[in-house]
Amino acid sequence: MSEELGVQTKRSEDFSKWYLEVVRKGGFIDQRSPAKGFDVIMPWGYAIWQLIQEKFNVLLKEDGTHNTYFPMVIPERLLKKEEDHLEGFKAETMMITDAGGEKLEEKLAVRPTSETIMYHMFNLWIRSHTDLPMKVNQWCNIVRYDTKMTKPFIRGREFLWSEGHTAHATEEGAKAQVDNVVKKMYQKMYDDFAMSKLLLERPKSDTFAGANFSVVFDTLMQDGKVVQGPGTHMLGQNFSKPFDIKFTDQDGKEKFVWQTSWGITTRQIGALIMHHGDDKGAVLPPEIAPYQVVIVPILFKGKEKMVEDKTKGIKKSLEEDGLRVHLDDRPQSAGFKFNEWELKGVPLRIEIGPKDVENEELTIVTRLGKKDVLKDIDKVKEILADIQKELSHRSEKFLLDSIKDVKTLEELKKRAEEGGFFRGNWCGSGECEGWIKSESGGAEVRGTLYGKEEKPFGNCIYCGKDAKHVVYMAKAY
Amino acid sequence: MSEELGVQTKRSEDFSKWYLEVVRKGGFIDQRSPAKGFDVIMPWGYAIWQLIQEKFNVLLKEDGTHNTYFPMVIPERLLKKEEDHLEGFKAETMMITDAGGEKLEEKLAVRPTSETIMYHMFNLWIRSHTDLPMKVNQWCNIVRYDTKMTKPFIRGREFLWSEGHTAHATEEGAKAQVDNVVKKMYQKMYDDFAMSKLLLERPKSDTFAGANFSVVFDTLMQDGKVVQGPGTHMLGQNFSKPFDIKFTDQDGKEKFVWQTSWGITTRQIGALIMHHGDDKGAVLPPEIAPYQVVIVPILFKGKEKMVEDKTKGIKKSLEEDGLRVHLDDRPQSAGFKFNEWELKGVPLRIEIGPKDVENEELTIVTRLGKKDVLKDIDKVKEILADIQKELSHRSEKFLLDSIKDVKTLEELKKRAEEGGFFRGNWCGSGECEGWIKSESGGAEVRGTLYGKEEKPFGNCIYCGKDAKHVVYMAKAY
Repeated sequence: MSEELGVQTKRSEDFSKWYLEVVRKGGFIDQRSPAKGFDVIMPWGYAIWQLIQEKFNVLLKEDGTHNTYFPMVIPERLLKKEEDHLEGFKAETMMITDAGGEKLEEKLAVRPTSETIMYHMFNLWIRSHTDLPMKVNQWCNIVRYDTKMTKPFIRGREFLWSEGHTAHATEEGAKAQVDNVVKKMYQKMYDDFAMSKLLLERPKSDTFAGANFSVVFDTLMQDGKVVQGPGTHMLGQNFSKPFDIKFTDQDGKEKFVWQTSWGITTRQIGALIMHHGDDKGAVLPPEIAPYQVVIVPILFKGKEKMVEDKTKGIKKSLEEDGLRVHLDDRPQSAGFKFNEWELKGVPLRIEIGPKDVENEELTIVTRLGKKDVLKDIDKVKEILADIQKELSHRSEKFLLDSIKDVKTLEELKKRAEEGGFFRGNWCGSGECEGWIKSESGGAEVRGTLYGKEEKPFGNCIYCGKDAKHVVYMAKAY
Repeated sequence: MSEELGVQTKRSEDFSKWYLEVVRKGGFIDQRSPAKGFDVIMPWGYAIWQLIQEKFNVLLKEDGTHNTYFPMVIPERLLKKEEDHLEGFKAETMMITDAGGEKLEEKLAVRPTSETIMYHMFNLWIRSHTDLPMKVNQWCNIVRYDTKMTKPFIRGREFLWSEGHTAHATEEGAKAQVDNVVKKMYQKMYDDFAMSKLLLERPKSDTFAGANFSVVFDTLMQDGKVVQGPGTHMLGQNFSKPFDIKFTDQDGKEKFVWQTSWGITTRQIGALIMHHGDDKGAVLPPEIAPYQVVIVPILFKGKEKMVEDKTKGIKKSLEEDGLRVHLDDRPQSAGFKFNEWELKGVPLRIEIGPKDVENEELTIVTRLGKKDVLKDIDKVKEILADIQKELSHRSEKFLLDSIKDVKTLEELKKRAEEGGFFRGNWCGSGECEGWIKSESGGAEVRGTLYGKEEKPFGNCIYCGKDAKHVVYMAKAY
């Protein structure tokens, strides 16, 4: 690819342009697809997704959730069964109307999410309390015809995700599932992402269409704007009633099930880059880096063989140690390779020249800029763990430093440009919520802390009446 | 699920009905989706697919093929660029015409395969010989609006697959890729499937739309009919010319790339069942069984704990040995569990009762019906390897025994009902090919052996003129 190498834009100059350069030049994603808003996930981007899949599959198994695959098409009539749900997705649903040049008898929606088609099957599968809990997941593509400006990974018309769907005998069972998903499963993923977040319960206006409440991971990007991470939805009996999903309980009575749904998407890859990246490119936490270590041989005429042998040996022993290692033995210059792997965000580089071989040493350079000479290869694992820890600490500090209390709309207006989260009081009315966003220049009510009630410390920042909630406000992608 | 348990139909009575019972009752797939021809892959079926993915991903990595994800939609104009290709897929392509209630400016095809959208990007990505070979794969869903009778896994309107696409500097490079895919990668998968096959080059009529030639794995089912397995296509420069995929070679000249594409699909799951199954249900080869071993505790009042402890210990040590093990500690009876795991095809069952604990023994029953008492748990791995070998041998014998030479159409007509492969001579004309199928009652020309020329041993079985090829004929799904 013949474009100029390396990232030309600094984050401080134009964050958005910097991001576009990183994702394209780093080989994460390509927006030049012939179908607008449908991007191509390139090998390096997909490799991160594959790691996310592998790690999350382990958590799904522990949770007793089984992978499945449901049809991509949903007959229009099914979408209509739950009205709030239909209303929520109507504007962005794409429809298949023709096949083989002929009109179809019934239009088929391309799934914008799979509640309706899955729950049609739950109705057939669930009979008795012994069938519960029923927990399934699918890894699939999702299409939502978003007409807003697209942004690779963050906002597009097609994305990949995991969608988990569960049915329980009791409300408590469903709530416990929500807790397990957010506090254990997604939390474990966020530990691997080295990303701190606010765990928020969304205001009604932004709750998943058809849910009683939605819990989301809100993460700050370096420009002070928020990207929503995985969402977990308590569906109550809102779907089990229209889809008639009933079971015979131990007391012999027929009851409707209680349900949850939850999803994590390829959007996460974009968030990782905007959260951790620097002016050289992406910075990937070791836990989620497709290659944790790249070895670059430094070759001098006549001494190639000793270096090549050494690099192969190092690769082998690091792999035996369970690490993901790449030996870059392409003909390009060492400098070219250094830049490329920094752009891609590989956490650790090992350079091996003839001197290193003679001295029985390794020169290492971390993606955070630390250079060192190692005698002992076993230290590599430790250094990677340190990088993971350092990124987590940075992320935590960045989040905590960003939270600012505001008592009035004026204050929010003045400070909205700073970015980050603003903590304030809200009466709970949708009207005030709307005005807060429009009057503050875009800082919107993201929600209340999930599972931790906070007492208001003043009146509603918009109407000045009694506040019901302490809410977190931010500009968001 | 309140249906009658166990398979009620014998293979010899009604093979098709037997298959439908096995896939549904065994929890492989459910056809009762609200969108006709779009089936639901259930947990046990998907677990096999996940294993196929894991195993094939290792082979892709060794081959230097990178996973990616391309858009599911293809603007109509792209499909039209390669005429044979368009012609081949026109009748079964589904079109998206509306989004959010509005007509789209350009219709979008739902991918029936991804050559056209991928090669649009290859055009952007390939500049120099140093960019070659370019090898990518994607795991995705495919939609083909087949109007024929559907059959779960075997023929449906949506399936999952891996599609590999490569571009090479030379024709030899592309041909070597075809060889590597069929002889190494897919062959390794077939070893794991314990399935013998004929590796056939398809006749022109059945070559992939837009390819120079197609190589396929043809496998016999127990009813004597063939299921086509993975296909590998030599695309030559048929796509690189209309898509203008050129590179500057080492000699400074601009040249068109040579391409291949290849795919393996969820159809394979159906083939595994119809190939290996017996009257009790599926029989899964250990290499591809989601659980290789199921442990069933046999509980007696007062002696539960000793049995439970023992089963947990066995599970742990087998897992440490790298096996996929499930401990079935549900409240159902042992007999119920035996039947269920036999139906699902798990290769080995371990029964542990109080006596086994006292005698420090394991009672094992293989899915092939062998019962034994083991003193040494280390033997389990060996027994699984034996099952894999036995299934492979059976498969090989079944295939070889099925191949019959036929010299005349009369002979083919008379014997077509026996099923299996018929080896005969063919002049090479499409007309004779058509007549052979219609006159024989459905036995069609499947192709010639790939990479192994066979000399005709008579004249064309239809027209009686000089034969050009020895071909294999069979009825097929």
